[in-house]
Amino acid sequence: MRGVHHVCMAVEDLDDAVATYERLFGAEVEIRDRIDAQGVDAVYLRVGDGRLELVSPLDDQTPVGRFLAKRGPGVHHVAFEVDDVHAAADELVERGANVIDREPRAGLGGHEVVFVHPESLDGVLAEVLGG
Amino acid sequence: MRGVHHVCMAVEDLDDAVATYERLFGAEVEIRDRIDAQGVDAVYLRVGDGRLELVSPLDDQTPVGRFLAKRGPGVHHVAFEVDDVHAAADELVERGANVIDREPRAGLGGHEVVFVHPESLDGVLAEVLGG
Repeated sequence: MRGVHHVCMAVEDLDDAVATYERLFGAEVEIRDRIDAQGVDAVYLRVGDGRLELVSPLDDQTPVGRFLAKRGPGVHHVAFEVDDVHAAADELVERGANVIDREPRAGLGGHEVVFVHPESLDGVLAEVLGG
Repeated sequence: MRGVHHVCMAVEDLDDAVATYERLFGAEVEIRDRIDAQGVDAVYLRVGDGRLELVSPLDDQTPVGRFLAKRGPGVHHVAFEVDDVHAAADELVERGANVIDREPRAGLGGHEVVFVHPESLDGVLAEVLGG
């Protein structure tokens, strides 16, 4: 693992949340895009040398839509960067983790990502992201 | 803001959670201590160049104890590093944030920290941490 690539927050209103992080923390938008593979509109924000992702659901029946309905807005996942997402996913399976994706899917910024189920990581949804 | 200092996860069993992050992500313990000001046993883990904090409550009536009873284990807060925690707290109040602590309290590793209420940040509890 190279490190923490970003922390992702699920929000109801993406523009409003971006404005809040800009105002309070001096955040700057790095990239903004629709990610159909995850059913969200998404933004990467830089806060100093850190990176946050904000996502809002495309509709109520997406995973992030259901997350918001159940838990309300808040931290959705933590993303860890690796050199090779395919090798990392295989290693995680070998070590007993429940890797949700059989094949990597597309993440914001063109990264290939897989998700590790919260049951494998004390309630935390982890994204593993190719560099 | 310098960046993201750490992501903190609330867990039931600290030893067990540390072992999971070591096994799955090759995490390494940086520091471990009891933080009476927050009512937790706490560990900083390094994962590559990233840092996670794991906390378990000293008893059920601590904030983290109540968090676990209500929501179960998961991400508890995201910590942002600043040069001067006093100045940053004043600025956040001026910008309309609900800063929970009037005065900084002690965090893991000797840092002075204040917390920003989730109502100010789309459901995310933020820690602001002096460098």
